[in-house]
Amino acid sequence: MNCIYNSRNLKYKDPFGAVEINTKIRFTIELPLEFSCSQVYICFYDNDSFSKDIELSKNESANNTIKYTCYFTPSDANVLFYYFKIYSNSSVTYIHKNADGTGYLSDNYGPDFQLTVFQQNLKTPDFVKGGIYYQIFPDRFFYSKEKKKNVPSDRILRSDWGNIPYFLPNKQGKILNKDYFCGDLKGIQQKLPYLKSLGVNIIYLNPIFESHSNHRYGTANYMKIDPLLGTEKDFSNLCLAAKEKDIHIILDGVFNHTGDDSIYFNKKNRYSSIGAYNSKSSKYYSWYNFAEFPNHYASWWNFPTLPAINKYNDEFLNFLCGDNGVIKKWLRLGASGFRLDVVDELPSHFVKKIRNAVKSEGEDKLLIGEVWEDASNKIAYGKAKKYFLGDQLDSVMNYPFRNSIISYIKNKDKNRFENSIMTIVENYPPEILNVCMNLLSTHDIARAITALAGEPEQNDIQWRFENVLSIYQYELGINMLKCAMALQYFLPGSPCIYYGDEVGVQGYRDPFNRKCYPWGNEDKNILQFSRFLGKLRKNLPALSNGSIEFIPSSKDTIAFKRQNKNHSTIFVLNPNNHEATVNLDLNLNIYKCIHGNYKNNNIFLNSYSFAVFTRKK
Amino acid sequence: MNCIYNSRNLKYKDPFGAVEINTKIRFTIELPLEFSCSQVYICFYDNDSFSKDIELSKNESANNTIKYTCYFTPSDANVLFYYFKIYSNSSVTYIHKNADGTGYLSDNYGPDFQLTVFQQNLKTPDFVKGGIYYQIFPDRFFYSKEKKKNVPSDRILRSDWGNIPYFLPNKQGKILNKDYFCGDLKGIQQKLPYLKSLGVNIIYLNPIFESHSNHRYGTANYMKIDPLLGTEKDFSNLCLAAKEKDIHIILDGVFNHTGDDSIYFNKKNRYSSIGAYNSKSSKYYSWYNFAEFPNHYASWWNFPTLPAINKYNDEFLNFLCGDNGVIKKWLRLGASGFRLDVVDELPSHFVKKIRNAVKSEGEDKLLIGEVWEDASNKIAYGKAKKYFLGDQLDSVMNYPFRNSIISYIKNKDKNRFENSIMTIVENYPPEILNVCMNLLSTHDIARAITALAGEPEQNDIQWRFENVLSIYQYELGINMLKCAMALQYFLPGSPCIYYGDEVGVQGYRDPFNRKCYPWGNEDKNILQFSRFLGKLRKNLPALSNGSIEFIPSSKDTIAFKRQNKNHSTIFVLNPNNHEATVNLDLNLNIYKCIHGNYKNNNIFLNSYSFAVFTRKK
Repeated sequence: MNCIYNSRNLKYKDPFGAVEINTKIRFTIELPLEFSCSQVYICFYDNDSFSKDIELSKNESANNTIKYTCYFTPSDANVLFYYFKIYSNSSVTYIHKNADGTGYLSDNYGPDFQLTVFQQNLKTPDFVKGGIYYQIFPDRFFYSKEKKKNVPSDRILRSDWGNIPYFLPNKQGKILNKDYFCGDLKGIQQKLPYLKSLGVNIIYLNPIFESHSNHRYGTANYMKIDPLLGTEKDFSNLCLAAKEKDIHIILDGVFNHTGDDSIYFNKKNRYSSIGAYNSKSSKYYSWYNFAEFPNHYASWWNFPTLPAINKYNDEFLNFLCGDNGVIKKWLRLGASGFRLDVVDELPSHFVKKIRNAVKSEGEDKLLIGEVWEDASNKIAYGKAKKYFLGDQLDSVMNYPFRNSIISYIKNKDKNRFENSIMTIVENYPPEILNVCMNLLSTHDIARAITALAGEPEQNDIQWRFENVLSIYQYELGINMLKCAMALQYFLPGSPCIYYGDEVGVQGYRDPFNRKCYPWGNEDKNILQFSRFLGKLRKNLPALSNGSIEFIPSSKDTIAFKRQNKNHSTIFVLNPNNHEATVNLDLNLNIYKCIHGNYKNNNIFLNSYSFAVFTRKK
Repeated sequence: MNCIYNSRNLKYKDPFGAVEINTKIRFTIELPLEFSCSQVYICFYDNDSFSKDIELSKNESANNTIKYTCYFTPSDANVLFYYFKIYSNSSVTYIHKNADGTGYLSDNYGPDFQLTVFQQNLKTPDFVKGGIYYQIFPDRFFYSKEKKKNVPSDRILRSDWGNIPYFLPNKQGKILNKDYFCGDLKGIQQKLPYLKSLGVNIIYLNPIFESHSNHRYGTANYMKIDPLLGTEKDFSNLCLAAKEKDIHIILDGVFNHTGDDSIYFNKKNRYSSIGAYNSKSSKYYSWYNFAEFPNHYASWWNFPTLPAINKYNDEFLNFLCGDNGVIKKWLRLGASGFRLDVVDELPSHFVKKIRNAVKSEGEDKLLIGEVWEDASNKIAYGKAKKYFLGDQLDSVMNYPFRNSIISYIKNKDKNRFENSIMTIVENYPPEILNVCMNLLSTHDIARAITALAGEPEQNDIQWRFENVLSIYQYELGINMLKCAMALQYFLPGSPCIYYGDEVGVQGYRDPFNRKCYPWGNEDKNILQFSRFLGKLRKNLPALSNGSIEFIPSSKDTIAFKRQNKNHSTIFVLNPNNHEATVNLDLNLNIYKCIHGNYKNNNIFLNSYSFAVFTRKK
């Protein structure tokens, strides 16, 4: 059967993808002549209470098909879904969505199309576009060897940089995360030239506020740098030094919960302040939700060490977003934005307030959310989150791209890859897509090389410890990683290097993905490749905000075009352990081949390699 | 009471220490005038059947004492013990030995003095004297990245150089040692310039023959280099390249047992040969001792994976020591000697045959024994081993010195240190003492820095994993290690660096003491110090074969003189966390101060530092 509808084809929907409000959109479907129908509707709805049906008018026929068309100009920012409803004789038929964006006829329920409508003038910070993120787990990046003052004595300060973090549960079955390798802010500052050599212009730091575990996700004091990382002065110096190199610093905002061992909760009486746990008269008592004082309280995923914040408490919101609040303090000291930890747990009004606080320090301050799925239509706790309409997030951690890339490089399912990428591209407002944090690894998942070349991860901690890559797997892994990174650097959004990935660090998830950066023991091969990608990216303006279009190529290779007003770039990848010759249905002679081997319209690709063509209009 | 006897003082015994046969020795004791005695005897015996009493004659009196003297010229090489027996009126009194070598009167049993009498012309290889050993655990030193052929597929080839070896028992409670980091012979060859920079002239390699565990102590084929380490050609190339740099290679001879997974035993049917386990008609059957064929056989420490060799089997002895035997093969390919694993388990005739095989390839080939105690008087399985008379070992691993050094630097018990050192010095023939392997760490014990600055080792494997030094302990440990190394380099014998100790590698025992050499992550401070010690040693001829004499110094410092025919060297150490000023009862003005701060007869020592003076006669 011929195509009925394709939301990714301008013939059927124009313009493509997410739209600003008040954009007039044309929808066209094409039905077979023999399909006798009385009326055709496009039916919109959202996850709250909106719904609207618009009738399409029959307007043209050719090739044994009849076209039905309508126009819709949404006036409110929203995440809409739609399907088509066709009345014929006495029956009703629907058009639902295939994974590739095309429609299929059905008399039953099915997946619907999405239309993201965002606010006017949605604008995200320009410094991210075409840039490169670098994520640092601060305890494990670099230790300046400067001695720190006032370090709590219950910390285990390890002197064996580079070895495995303690991972075995203690006799009570708990993994304490009390061992620190002493990476610090001064250390990061000293390595700015290294980051610059990778082309990095944004550093995303995992939490740096005082906290009594090595990952620092249980904040003890939002107003203080952790003593083992350095001082407030070290922080502002780092921001200054980074700024001189055009590098921005993004902080981790962990606002859903605090540590139980904090000045606010003070369960362990570490602090002299009266915490919520100590007394109902504590000024922090109302920050939390006690079911029964003091031992039963709401906490994140029921971890008692992480008591949850009552997000409807104005005092906390003011502490966070007020004029002398947490957010403004750190932005004024030099940070360029925040990444919101577990943003799905935060109500919309809460995120909105945070956004306002962030943006009040400059429209170019960045707000990124930790979302693991398609963030445009995320529903959490029964609520449609609608992060991308303009009043919530600028960007998200792009786990969907990561999953697509890893899966493609492993399994080579090209259609699946293209469809999953295009779904995100279609659903996300371009301004947001262009600043998405395109990661391959984070502190929460296995290292990319391990995910690519290792066995599927098991939950058993000994298994995870003992399943490092063999030297053969590693060699393959580096090749696969190169392909994955090439995609990461060329797809829409900005790549985010998880510290150490660029030099071959491996490991399954926590804590094996949080090893120290292996200074002096870097894999030079992949490091050189990472630097090369950084340089390429810098010289290809189409990567910063260009559209993406997949181009047909031979079955085992993949090709796409990135294009903006002035530039277009063609990327062709051979992710296989054999050479490939690719002949694209394009006039490549008007392009300049800046990487790869091209001759007489043939692109010759070594195993695990790619080619790049570029053109200025 | 005044001194009665002191075996370490020429006034009482001349000459000092161990003697060659046919050396005339004077023994003198000094008894108080009021001690009325009729006869005085010196009573010699050995651990077999020898005994001999010699009467001392009264020959002089002064200072309210009477001297008794005799001469003894031993005509057989042996390890003798002696005490004095004093008949007075109707009672008998004995003189036994204090820890400091002096005698005490007693009417009961007590420790006796030792007299080691060695063969004429006992000679050990000159290249060791004044040299520096370096012990390498081959899997963990350096990987050349050359791919290896025929590597058995049951090996886990890790790609994460530098991380902790797998240490957790599997579900059967066994630690398999099947993970390899792929260090190889080519890697060692590439690092010869590095070893040279430390002053190393002897490399002691842990086993390199084919074996199916990462430590390779269960030999699978004595005639073959383990495929993961390289080839026979790689080995001879390494020896050649080393020779060009005046570096000698010593191999680990593991001849007490084989692996069960060997071409000889073949329990796992890995090999096509018929092993002893496979059939009683195997040509290797008689190499082993079966209590009940095939599953009950003698094995080392009852580990069934290490079936013990029947040391009274001539075929094995011939296989080992014959003209085309194991020992000659590897010496001819370039090795300069062997270190005999668990030599205490080997009968004397067996060691003698090995020695003959070794020395038949050159008198300067070296034979070292693994002995953990004073090897001069070691008794094993009821047999006095008598390693040092001239027909057994040239050298031993000097664990007694190691224990004394570690204990002194930790506890600062100076008397105990001097006594334990002098006991070894007195008991060992100088030729042997001068080539002893003065180690601080080995593959069998905790790393020196951990032994010095860590908590006392516990048996629990998780405890050992999680007790790396804190950054504060590490700093202290480096200072302590410097003091320990200074002693190691200045005491009689030759220092042996356990790979990585010289750059601050730490860890409790097996497998935490077998981590990879941290290329690129070396502690430059201790490395520089190690190189400095290497240079010092090279320029101090008295260290190669000089006698040792402790010199009184302030209580919390230690000083000794090393002296040979032409040179003497004074060494003064302050192993404390405070400065010290030392004033020795010596005319230091005739010495040249080559390290330290010296002025007006005062030696100024910073905390954890030492001074060196030298003089050519």
